[in-house]
Amino acid sequence: MTVAADRRAEARGDPSARRAHILDAAEACFARNGFHRTTMQDLAREAAMSPGNFYRYFESKEALVVGLVERERERGTLLVAQMEGSGNRRGALLSIIARYFVSITREAAILRVEIWSESTRNPAIAALTARTEAESRDWFVTTFAALATAPDCDPAALYALVAPLMRGIVVGRAALPDFDVTAAVAQLHALLDAGLDGRLPYAPGPRAKS
Amino acid sequence: MTVAADRRAEARGDPSARRAHILDAAEACFARNGFHRTTMQDLAREAAMSPGNFYRYFESKEALVVGLVERERERGTLLVAQMEGSGNRRGALLSIIARYFVSITREAAILRVEIWSESTRNPAIAALTARTEAESRDWFVTTFAALATAPDCDPAALYALVAPLMRGIVVGRAALPDFDVTAAVAQLHALLDAGLDGRLPYAPGPRAKS
Repeated sequence: MTVAADRRAEARGDPSARRAHILDAAEACFARNGFHRTTMQDLAREAAMSPGNFYRYFESKEALVVGLVERERERGTLLVAQMEGSGNRRGALLSIIARYFVSITREAAILRVEIWSESTRNPAIAALTARTEAESRDWFVTTFAALATAPDCDPAALYALVAPLMRGIVVGRAALPDFDVTAAVAQLHALLDAGLDGRLPYAPGPRAKS
Repeated sequence: MTVAADRRAEARGDPSARRAHILDAAEACFARNGFHRTTMQDLAREAAMSPGNFYRYFESKEALVVGLVERERERGTLLVAQMEGSGNRRGALLSIIARYFVSITREAAILRVEIWSESTRNPAIAALTARTEAESRDWFVTTFAALATAPDCDPAALYALVAPLMRGIVVGRAALPDFDVTAAVAQLHALLDAGLDGRLPYAPGPRAKS
């Protein structure tokens, strides 16, 4: 696409739509070829933009990963708002989690695994992953505490169980074509329900930290 | 290292020790720089071998990944033999799983995530991952059935729960420096124990497949 065509496309849409379009293109590219084999030129081509115009939106591959993680967080915030507005908050939480994991596209799951992999060697992405994890932990532990129906529910221990389980479901979705996501999510659902009702056998010893 | 020095090193050791040394070097390289940014030259340098000699052992990066996955499987076989030889097979299973996840090095965990990531786009590695997963599933489901102490234990449903949980523990170990692996493994242990005793709330509906 020429610069002139870029300008016409921009004139048609607002910058935030253009940003969303670029993030979609980056998600597709990173999932298909991985973070390292993707160049800024590939990304501009996938977004059908001139490299010059592309750089005006995102200056590096890292900036795109930050943009993708932020978009994921915004989607999470929307789901949370939906849950808070529901009469049955606990039912809403369980159905939102189930829906999220069943409906996540293979592409989005691959991108998640790619970001985890990249955060093992890129300090900026590692910091982003750590921050996302800390926020997620705080939110889940607080929410579990609010929705528990029995004193035997240990919100931190429940999180120590379901956080790796949720990550593992994403890995299965990304890396195992035969992975039965419905079965895994059904087990996660049963586990959360039992945990909130204080019917889970937690490990003895000091309360779990993470 | 020169070719002559390579030959001297080889004369000192047997080929299988040399193979193990190369696999160690590849594990370190792939974990540090990722699969794509690592070249055969980097791998030969890390193993302190001439490229020519290196190629006599492994002809490609894919062959090294196959070698690493096979080594992982051999280690699993050793642990299984240890369990089978124990008077208390169930106790041995639980302690072996716990030990495995607590003692896995960050490097080995990173390599695992890297292999999952790579199997999303490399058919040969995808096939290897699928085969490993199918073997693991068969072994665990059979073992859970043999070690169950209650008719309410559903081995397939228990595997649908613990397989993603185990994968997620590896991701946590690799990507989250603050990940509390001890807490996660303690919860996994409690879950397995409860599952084998038929005390877990499985999801209703058709029996889980994976």
